Amino acid sequence: MKMSPAIQDLIDALRHLPGVGPKSAQRMTLHLLERDREAAESLGEALLAALSRVQQCQRCRNFTELTICEICGDPKRDDSLLCVVETPADVLAIEHTGSYRGLYFVLMGHLSPLDGIGPKELGLDSLEVLLEQETISEVILATNPTVEGEATGHYIAEMANRNKILVSRIAHGVPLGGELEYIDATTLAHALGGRKVVSPE
Amino acid sequence: MKMSPAIQDLIDALRHLPGVGPKSAQRMTLHLLERDREAAESLGEALLAALSRVQQCQRCRNFTELTICEICGDPKRDDSLLCVVETPADVLAIEHTGSYRGLYFVLMGHLSPLDGIGPKELGLDSLEVLLEQETISEVILATNPTVEGEATGHYIAEMANRNKILVSRIAHGVPLGGELEYIDATTLAHALGGRKVVSPE
Ligand SMILES: [Zn+2]
Ligand SMILES: [Zn+2]
Repeated sequence: MKMSPAIQDLIDALRHLPGVGPKSAQRMTLHLLERDREAAESLGEALLAALSRVQQCQRCRNFTELTICEICGDPKRDDSLLCVVETPADVLAIEHTGSYRGLYFVLMGHLSPLDGIGPKELGLDSLEVLLEQETISEVILATNPTVEGEATGHYIAEMANRNKILVSRIAHGVPLGGELEYIDATTLAHALGGRKVVSPE
Repeated sequence: MKMSPAIQDLIDALRHLPGVGPKSAQRMTLHLLERDREAAESLGEALLAALSRVQQCQRCRNFTELTICEICGDPKRDDSLLCVVETPADVLAIEHTGSYRGLYFVLMGHLSPLDGIGPKELGLDSLEVLLEQETISEVILATNPTVEGEATGHYIAEMANRNKILVSRIAHGVPLGGELEYIDATTLAHALGGRKVVSPE
């Protein structure tokens, strides 16, 4: 016996969510249809609204509904500091510490040649323009302490070096192999405060 | 710092899915926006399509896109058998066994007076009409072996009795292939209570 096509389509669509297998997708579908049609409608509309409204900031690449995001556009932020992170979740995690007042650049990933993710896919051409044109005095590398994150950080450090900009790296304290988005705020604040200059030495 | 409103709305909407907490909702949202906008669009459309197309079968209350569902409308099914279950997922589980060819009645829940779920909310008035008007020879109770499921089954058994219809109940006990030491005490007690004489035959 098959589910009705509209139900099966919904189960299949829910399986694209990370961490959702066939059993959970079926449970979610029946839950929404049986007990929470209002939530299903809100979710459907929220998805389509987010897709049509959310773009990337033209300066930092973070998600925003504006051309230039709220952080980049905030005159109270210190625009001499640029923190480079892999994902929007990392920006949130750092903002959550309340201990950073500079700007960001969001790579939306890390260098991964085997997956076809090179400098261009990470917007490193726009980053180079930022480094050349803005008055950035320090680039803070906050890529993940993984092989790919380190390689990406190294690449960006060289770009900053060419522009004679100080490069620092958030302190170890973030466990090796850990992902920023899952680190508690205190550890992350500590890591930021203890950042070390990596070049020029 | 807050997320952009459209992103926050999406995170909030995803939290209505069963088993999805704030961290997973955020991870799902960023995953969809960063890497799977196509999946987000399909999901949004599938939700709205399911809501507008999926209704309940006018005979058995199961979800369907038709007025009368495919099972109820199938002339090859045995319409003298009526299996009463709590949810559409239970119908799927029984259909999956391939060993039942009768029809169903789907309660979409169980009696739960404290939550305001009485006979009317479970469609027991329509079930009574079915029992009176159709030529049903046996009602098979397959409500869950919980206090509420048992009470619901008992209520339906009395309705069937009034209509002089045979009532049976699916067997509960140790699952085939299950090991006694891992079975919960309630199930095991139930299995003991429901023991059958095997000899002398
Ligand atoms: Zn920005
Ligand atoms: Zn039906």
